[in-house]
Amino acid sequence: MGYQYLSNLPLDQAAADYLAALVADGFIAQKEQVAATEACGRVLYGPVYANICAPHYNAAAMDGIALDAAITFGATETTPVIINDSQYWVVDTGDPLPEGCDAVVMVEDVVRVAEGVKLVAAAAPWQHIRQIGEDICASDMILPAYATVTPSAIGAMLAGGVLEVDVIKKPLVGIIPTGDEIIAPCANPEPGDIIEFNSSIFSAMLKGWGADIKVYPIVKDKLDLITNSVRQAAAECDIVLLNAGSSAGREDYSSQAIATVGELLYHGLAIKPGKPAVLGKAKAIPLIGVPGYPVSGIIILDQIVKPLLDRYFHCSDVDDQTVDAVLGKRLTTSLKYREFIRTRLGYVNGKMVATPLNRGAGVVSSFVKADGMIDVPQNCEGYEAGESVKVSLLRPLSQIKRTIVITGSHDPLIDELANLLVEADRNAGIASSHVGSMGGLMAVKRGEAHLCGTHLLDESSNQYNIPYVQKQFPKGGVILVECVYRQQGLMVAMGNPYGIRDLSDVARLKLDFVNRQKGAGTRILTDYIMKQQGIDIADLRGYQREEFTHTGVAAQIAGKTADAGMGIYSAAKIYGLDFVPVCEEQYDFLVSAESWDLPMVQKMIEVLSSASFRQRLQDLGGYRVENPGRIRCRF
Amino acid sequence: MGYQYLSNLPLDQAAADYLAALVADGFIAQKEQVAATEACGRVLYGPVYANICAPHYNAAAMDGIALDAAITFGATETTPVIINDSQYWVVDTGDPLPEGCDAVVMVEDVVRVAEGVKLVAAAAPWQHIRQIGEDICASDMILPAYATVTPSAIGAMLAGGVLEVDVIKKPLVGIIPTGDEIIAPCANPEPGDIIEFNSSIFSAMLKGWGADIKVYPIVKDKLDLITNSVRQAAAECDIVLLNAGSSAGREDYSSQAIATVGELLYHGLAIKPGKPAVLGKAKAIPLIGVPGYPVSGIIILDQIVKPLLDRYFHCSDVDDQTVDAVLGKRLTTSLKYREFIRTRLGYVNGKMVATPLNRGAGVVSSFVKADGMIDVPQNCEGYEAGESVKVSLLRPLSQIKRTIVITGSHDPLIDELANLLVEADRNAGIASSHVGSMGGLMAVKRGEAHLCGTHLLDESSNQYNIPYVQKQFPKGGVILVECVYRQQGLMVAMGNPYGIRDLSDVARLKLDFVNRQKGAGTRILTDYIMKQQGIDIADLRGYQREEFTHTGVAAQIAGKTADAGMGIYSAAKIYGLDFVPVCEEQYDFLVSAESWDLPMVQKMIEVLSSASFRQRLQDLGGYRVENPGRIRCRF
Repeated sequence: MGYQYLSNLPLDQAAADYLAALVADGFIAQKEQVAATEACGRVLYGPVYANICAPHYNAAAMDGIALDAAITFGATETTPVIINDSQYWVVDTGDPLPEGCDAVVMVEDVVRVAEGVKLVAAAAPWQHIRQIGEDICASDMILPAYATVTPSAIGAMLAGGVLEVDVIKKPLVGIIPTGDEIIAPCANPEPGDIIEFNSSIFSAMLKGWGADIKVYPIVKDKLDLITNSVRQAAAECDIVLLNAGSSAGREDYSSQAIATVGELLYHGLAIKPGKPAVLGKAKAIPLIGVPGYPVSGIIILDQIVKPLLDRYFHCSDVDDQTVDAVLGKRLTTSLKYREFIRTRLGYVNGKMVATPLNRGAGVVSSFVKADGMIDVPQNCEGYEAGESVKVSLLRPLSQIKRTIVITGSHDPLIDELANLLVEADRNAGIASSHVGSMGGLMAVKRGEAHLCGTHLLDESSNQYNIPYVQKQFPKGGVILVECVYRQQGLMVAMGNPYGIRDLSDVARLKLDFVNRQKGAGTRILTDYIMKQQGIDIADLRGYQREEFTHTGVAAQIAGKTADAGMGIYSAAKIYGLDFVPVCEEQYDFLVSAESWDLPMVQKMIEVLSSASFRQRLQDLGGYRVENPGRIRCRF
Repeated sequence: MGYQYLSNLPLDQAAADYLAALVADGFIAQKEQVAATEACGRVLYGPVYANICAPHYNAAAMDGIALDAAITFGATETTPVIINDSQYWVVDTGDPLPEGCDAVVMVEDVVRVAEGVKLVAAAAPWQHIRQIGEDICASDMILPAYATVTPSAIGAMLAGGVLEVDVIKKPLVGIIPTGDEIIAPCANPEPGDIIEFNSSIFSAMLKGWGADIKVYPIVKDKLDLITNSVRQAAAECDIVLLNAGSSAGREDYSSQAIATVGELLYHGLAIKPGKPAVLGKAKAIPLIGVPGYPVSGIIILDQIVKPLLDRYFHCSDVDDQTVDAVLGKRLTTSLKYREFIRTRLGYVNGKMVATPLNRGAGVVSSFVKADGMIDVPQNCEGYEAGESVKVSLLRPLSQIKRTIVITGSHDPLIDELANLLVEADRNAGIASSHVGSMGGLMAVKRGEAHLCGTHLLDESSNQYNIPYVQKQFPKGGVILVECVYRQQGLMVAMGNPYGIRDLSDVARLKLDFVNRQKGAGTRILTDYIMKQQGIDIADLRGYQREEFTHTGVAAQIAGKTADAGMGIYSAAKIYGLDFVPVCEEQYDFLVSAESWDLPMVQKMIEVLSSASFRQRLQDLGGYRVENPGRIRCRF
């Protein structure tokens, strides 16, 4: 059992060899004719020449009179020339120049007199005339081969009498989803069902790269069924993507099916995520086994399929936009693989900071949150925190620079705040990550976040946040801003079937607890309560099981894999859980003094004190509000 | 007669006031529901929350056996734990975790024995399990309001059980083309017909900005007809664009029709091109009179309509990508207007050089050629050559940097060369402009072009190019490359109706000549011949009439506005003209030594000597080829 990879080939080599093998067998653009009006964004198959001149006749460029310039020679204020009505023609802008005329006199310079018209200045030949071909001459090359048609190019083609144009035919990419457990997207999947959303992600990516898409029906995990589907797709499409489910051994079906229908070239690339990719071909048709985990699949499309399409369309290589960023935390990678690490970017105090995201290949939301990608070479063990790394951007730099980086303690109110902020100011945004209150303080201290959410209870003084901030920021440089008072308690199943009243009940009844990660304020609260109630760690089953958010804890209890967990009222409410209140705590924001005056931060403080924010808190439930946005203390 | 502009308002003020007036009357995004799978690129109307967790059950993350971790505690190599077959369940990756289990042991670590399974290491609770909500927790905000849906966001929404999503409805923009002379695009327009291509340019621009389009039938220049069409469009659309023809007085119809249907706010903006714009509204529906010249229209769409759509979609302001460039030639602008100058950009010898393009508002091809736009403020008279200007990019910088800038003498072979180059190397390109041979030498000298085309005949030595180059580049630093020998002659109407044998016939018969611009090699040849044949400038009717290209001259003769002009055989052939040979001349490329080693220049030299280039020259006709690409002389 286990995978049998045929190769562990470096990506660049595999991609180049694969492309070369395909091109050698005739992987080349086909053409189709489209109306020029429908060609925007399409890539030209060959050069486009103008059929006619634009303008296609000599046209008056002004309203006035057309005449033979020679009859006006010598006209001045003192020696005006008078011409009779047979010697000129009244023309409007755009009118064709009457025969025998070679100039237009503007209507403003025309004085009507009894005999006809008086001119007080000589006209220069060809004045105020748009000459034939001023814009485009017949036979001029309007655009060379492989140019992408723009709106103004459509205008130039139509002006040049080009109504139809040969463009590169969109290649048809067939996507075959496979897997016994795979089901079409639905709102109520059963346990064990795996929602098939990869084909939707891939379709959207491929459409953006200029392809047409055909998604085949989901195929069960039977080699003959998969082989048949690949054979059909290879007959109908220009590129075939076979998308494995997530269970093991699946890739073996892919490679066998591909080897049966065509020729298997490579199985296994030295990249992570994405290593189980299968590269094969049926003559000039790429047959690609794409790994099942969405993140792996996205990487394979980006690194293998996009270069194929770029070559097909003769696109010039676009230089990735990259920035230098300081790594916010240590990043360890494998020597065996080249790794692609999705990362958040934050522009804090003039420094670009990269915070790598969850690396699970199944975590598609990491791509939604990612601002960039760190490309860690094979044979590199990673980087230390504080090292400078190159990050290729997935989002415009200007947008990243206008984003407030909030880290620290998790609360759903941060998402609501983010939404209200973007509603109030389309140029601002919030990127939040959840590292617990202590982690947040450290991030602000290291200059990696503009602010953090914190609810740290000092046991000795029974005071929130201030003692911790004083200790961590002895030289000051931070501002503590009031946010909310929130209800903490034990989340339990609806109806509280075990009659839990406090944490000691959970321990005594040997129920399954689910904890928060180290450094989380809620974990510190749990520890404080355990100490107060004399509960030993060994007595609380599940103390070591960590979730990173309140909703994460609630989801476990709702999913019946835990009986109780500490968290805030709003999370319990969202998941339909019962809630045993334990205490009210103070949740504040700690803002670095250097970030305080940023317009986006001030806008956020404004939103914090708004009526709409209070309303959202009331909807969520479990919050008490005094003066959110008020400065509690400057350090 | 003449325009009556109601205002000469600065653009920024007009755009801001106009938007504010519209927003005050309810110009605001509407929503529509679309399938999540179809939402790529759409802008969310509100925040999107996950309906379910992803994964929605605790799933095995590996193939192996699921069990209660507690039964493995204490297992080591020396103290293995043996469990019987009722104590574990075989699971594949993705399978739901059986009840009572809280860990998965990888298949590699499972040793089958007679009694069941032997384990030599303890399992940690929750190892190799993808916990409920690892990716997304139900109720998590997947995306805030106004976010643009990406492919991975589609995946996250489907994973979170979101099948339908509220997005901002695409606004419907109505475009009304007007004008008596306006006709739908066709291949054979009559003199006086004006091809209506503005609606195609505008449609493509607006679609790219997220709008749906309805193009109304062309309306004749009658106030009541135009008014009726505006009224209908205002009832059916979210934004109405009334596109005047190019004749004068048209804008008055626009303003009157807009004032009748709604409310006229501004007529006349202090910008060039684009000044005759009309801004009005019918309650919250923008009614905009767009000037008829295509370049003016494009500027008004960019400066007035795009900001409306950006507000509608709540897009964040995207910072224009700008570069600093050295102005290649003097740029004089009006104090009265803010001017938008389309410009070529060339990256030559490490310096970005801007060469402003033809400013005619009717010259749509200038937008096709433009790499960027110089925004010259009102109250600025322009800039001197050599001054540094800010240019906002219309093309990616990487592409501009990979473009060979060829200037100097015009020959259609340059376009053919450009096309063959891009076919040979998708990462290279040529941007050419025609300033005559002398102008080309000067541009290379000033470091504004990589190379120039030149055919300068030195009268005293009867030698081409070398004497001129020696004089202009006394210190050297340039390389002269052989290109072609080409036939120059007099282009005349087919059948040569006046029996022209040489230039003296044109003068003697008092026929209409059309000349090339000063500095053109062909003009210098004409002057040389006139001197030889003793023809006086005053005797050659049309000597002052200038065209910038061979095809431009040919177009005039084909259009019967001139009887003869000097030019190359290929231009005459293209236009079906007769050709009276005058001489064969030597057309070379002069390359700056600093550019010589650039891979793209070397690639071009390679293409120059290729069989395909010879073939194209033969197709064009009138060329004799010896060793194109050979170095003639290093200076």
